[in-house]
Amino acid sequence: MLLLENIMVVLVEPSHPGNIGAVARAMKTMGLSRLALLNPRKFPHVEASSRAAGADSVLESAIVTDDLLSVISDCTLVLGTSVRDREVTWPTSDPKQAASLTLEHLSVDSQARKVAILFGRENSGLSNRELDLCQRQICIPANQTYSSLNLASAVQIIAYELFMASRGHAEEQSSSKKSLTAKKPLTALEKRQQSATKEQLEGHLTHLEETLGMLDFIKSGPSTMLMRKLIRLYNKADLTIEEIQILRGILSAMQDHLPQSKKG
Amino acid sequence: MLLLENIMVVLVEPSHPGNIGAVARAMKTMGLSRLALLNPRKFPHVEASSRAAGADSVLESAIVTDDLLSVISDCTLVLGTSVRDREVTWPTSDPKQAASLTLEHLSVDSQARKVAILFGRENSGLSNRELDLCQRQICIPANQTYSSLNLASAVQIIAYELFMASRGHAEEQSSSKKSLTAKKPLTALEKRQQSATKEQLEGHLTHLEETLGMLDFIKSGPSTMLMRKLIRLYNKADLTIEEIQILRGILSAMQDHLPQSKKG
Repeated sequence: MLLLENIMVVLVEPSHPGNIGAVARAMKTMGLSRLALLNPRKFPHVEASSRAAGADSVLESAIVTDDLLSVISDCTLVLGTSVRDREVTWPTSDPKQAASLTLEHLSVDSQARKVAILFGRENSGLSNRELDLCQRQICIPANQTYSSLNLASAVQIIAYELFMASRGHAEEQSSSKKSLTAKKPLTALEKRQQSATKEQLEGHLTHLEETLGMLDFIKSGPSTMLMRKLIRLYNKADLTIEEIQILRGILSAMQDHLPQSKKG
Repeated sequence: MLLLENIMVVLVEPSHPGNIGAVARAMKTMGLSRLALLNPRKFPHVEASSRAAGADSVLESAIVTDDLLSVISDCTLVLGTSVRDREVTWPTSDPKQAASLTLEHLSVDSQARKVAILFGRENSGLSNRELDLCQRQICIPANQTYSSLNLASAVQIIAYELFMASRGHAEEQSSSKKSLTAKKPLTALEKRQQSATKEQLEGHLTHLEETLGMLDFIKSGPSTMLMRKLIRLYNKADLTIEEIQILRGILSAMQDHLPQSKKG
């Protein structure tokens, strides 16, 4: 999560204060906190605060500026978002690739490296001049006949991919350290919810076959086609130990209710 | 893109009409068009139309209902979204896994298969009863200290992953040039091996609950924890029509063997 603190979302000339609030919320849900606003039309604004819905801290610490270059001056990687294809071909990533690239970039030196991600105006996106400041363009794939992604939705998708990438990173880090820490023993509940072993599954299937024989539902002898279908069914269900216990409980209850003469 | 037409987004009791509009927009940007609204507090509403921003077609064709079961009755796969961990462990996917699973499910037979994705109330999500209708839960990873994802943002993330997965699929299809061969009608055998619909699955679960009641294995009345575990088990098994027939055959045979007094 620490790496996410080095990522700044920059909104370029947002028109609607509601969108700014929604962006703050989208960011915070995915662990981002640094927001910069270039010439927002209305900010601060009651609509921004209301749509932020608990992510006020992001709004309160937001940088408001009229100088894009200075706000990104200490960034080591600058990315610009777009849903359109440009005439000039640009080095382009999809959101997942961009997130992976961003986390790799930051992980090399999280003290010195900072990343800015620019989001353009609601109606016209980023200008070519603004895109020229970016090392790379993030293109969010969308419906070609209706690609009108809301500003906060665009931020949500990118923030989600950054969050996913940071989790992957954290896991890699911890798995390389795991060998040092001993694993905790499972609780009784956790044990019951583990996948059943093959042996436990076979025990259930034998019990099932026996019960079906008592019901005259299948003939005894080598497994019938019907029994094979049931085996396939319970194989694909990926049963837990607890589920096997429940199913065998039902079979025992059935056997108990059968007339004495039927019992083997 | 065709496969995306078989996916229905279901909003369960949305409070804010603005969110409904924003959901419609989020859907359309990612090629989704089928929306169902269960007991929306206010709909149609001017705020919904204004936030839809050009995605009015999605709102106009939306199904408004007070009966969740009937609206998903012909669906062969039902998924429910959540940002919370539940006490009862549920088969859970992240958005990317769920999208891949959905597209795989649909690609087997895009004529007969339909998928519903349920999104819960803004404040309280889906109830346990509603989650019981789902084969699988989609958990959107989020900041543990602030996981308050806006409804339209949640839909945007899932829709984005579905769109990405459908693009991957379209590429695979075109490279294998499957579209050249006309599709043959299904044989009786193939029909039986199709995924069961929600309605068929519910029929089996009702039959099971009735039989367990007759065996005194569960008390009658509102579903017990044990019954919920069985519902989860059969939900995750992704049953075919034939498997449902076999399981119900066993239940009927069991009922036939019970002493007359036990029968309802």
